[in-house]
Amino acid sequence: MAKSMYLLWGSGSPPCWRLMITLEEKKLQGYKQKLLSFEKEEHKSKEVLEINPRGQLPTFKHGENIINESVGACLYLENQFKSQGNKLIPDSPAEQALMYQRMMEGLFFLEKMEFFVFYDFYAPEGERHDSALKRHKDNLVTELKLWESYLENCCFRGFSLADVVFFPSIACTFAYGLSPERYPKLAKYYNLLKDRPSIKATWPPKWFQFEQRSESLKEI
Amino acid sequence: MAKSMYLLWGSGSPPCWRLMITLEEKKLQGYKQKLLSFEKEEHKSKEVLEINPRGQLPTFKHGENIINESVGACLYLENQFKSQGNKLIPDSPAEQALMYQRMMEGLFFLEKMEFFVFYDFYAPEGERHDSALKRHKDNLVTELKLWESYLENCCFRGFSLADVVFFPSIACTFAYGLSPERYPKLAKYYNLLKDRPSIKATWPPKWFQFEQRSESLKEI
Repeated sequence: MAKSMYLLWGSGSPPCWRLMITLEEKKLQGYKQKLLSFEKEEHKSKEVLEINPRGQLPTFKHGENIINESVGACLYLENQFKSQGNKLIPDSPAEQALMYQRMMEGLFFLEKMEFFVFYDFYAPEGERHDSALKRHKDNLVTELKLWESYLENCCFRGFSLADVVFFPSIACTFAYGLSPERYPKLAKYYNLLKDRPSIKATWPPKWFQFEQRSESLKEI
Repeated sequence: MAKSMYLLWGSGSPPCWRLMITLEEKKLQGYKQKLLSFEKEEHKSKEVLEINPRGQLPTFKHGENIINESVGACLYLENQFKSQGNKLIPDSPAEQALMYQRMMEGLFFLEKMEFFVFYDFYAPEGERHDSALKRHKDNLVTELKLWESYLENCCFRGFSLADVVFFPSIACTFAYGLSPERYPKLAKYYNLLKDRPSIKATWPPKWFQFEQRSESLKEI
């Protein structure tokens, strides 16, 4: 099955990483893949645009089926390969509700991180304001504190699509210098999962814009 | 079953509307509900914050299970009530892939619309730039054209969660003055679905900030 899959991905991109973790969890190793460079704008190449008009990574095909949105692709793979590999959507209504809730909230987390870390990318020169940057920073801190509170009673029961969506983003924050002392629950969660085989096997060879950004979350 | 559900919602909010359409489609009428006012900041009230720390609508409980994220709640309801009412996730792999893809893309559509229509809300006075507003407008036009192209071959096969997510947003654009002549496929899609019973039964009694905004998409 995995042989009919084709993934175009960029290193350090949380959406790409989500999909790669899911492929590992579902024992779908051996898929065709190509690592592209964001810096060289390869995500805007003809090959990508033919499959993904948004020119984004991941870009993913399973046979003739195209599903580029990472969360959509993870849901699709879990549904198509229910009994293969690890189950990523729990059965019990309570666990399922929490899983879907955190999975979707995980998208906000990433967005809030990116609005702060990549502020210069979102706001061109001449449109930047210290007040806006501070607001994005405050929003991210609020978000981090919210997830700290979620993890108070170890909110993630088992490994599920909630972790698939959230873990790559929280790994980014630590790669960008987030303080484990200030966010101990998040650090504990990160350390608990970072050696999971599916995560280790797909660890980004390099972080997206890591070099310039490694210190950007140090003070928050 | 519906009796154990409680929905706090705001009129004209696409995320709230998604959930209400899903409840209709799954024959879960009769749930407890309360209409709150965004203008009066009732989404930041104690009652909401106790269930939803983000202070957003929808806020939704099924028994003791809390699931406030609209797409998460729709996925949850479809999974919990698979054989009740209409099936909202197709079985065939090809249709399922397309459904998940469009469902997640529907979130971007709404975001791009909001960044333009509610620009003054996102950018406080002193941080506003014509260049930013123009960029948001261009992004929305690109997005609208993309969906026009998706609808070229009538991309939505049957009614699914892709429509549940997308329809409320496209209904907003027409409420905000979008030209049916300039976007004929979107207009056709809108007209095809607007009288569907689940949609008609949940039509917003008033649009969020409609009064001030009704013309804002007229020229795009």
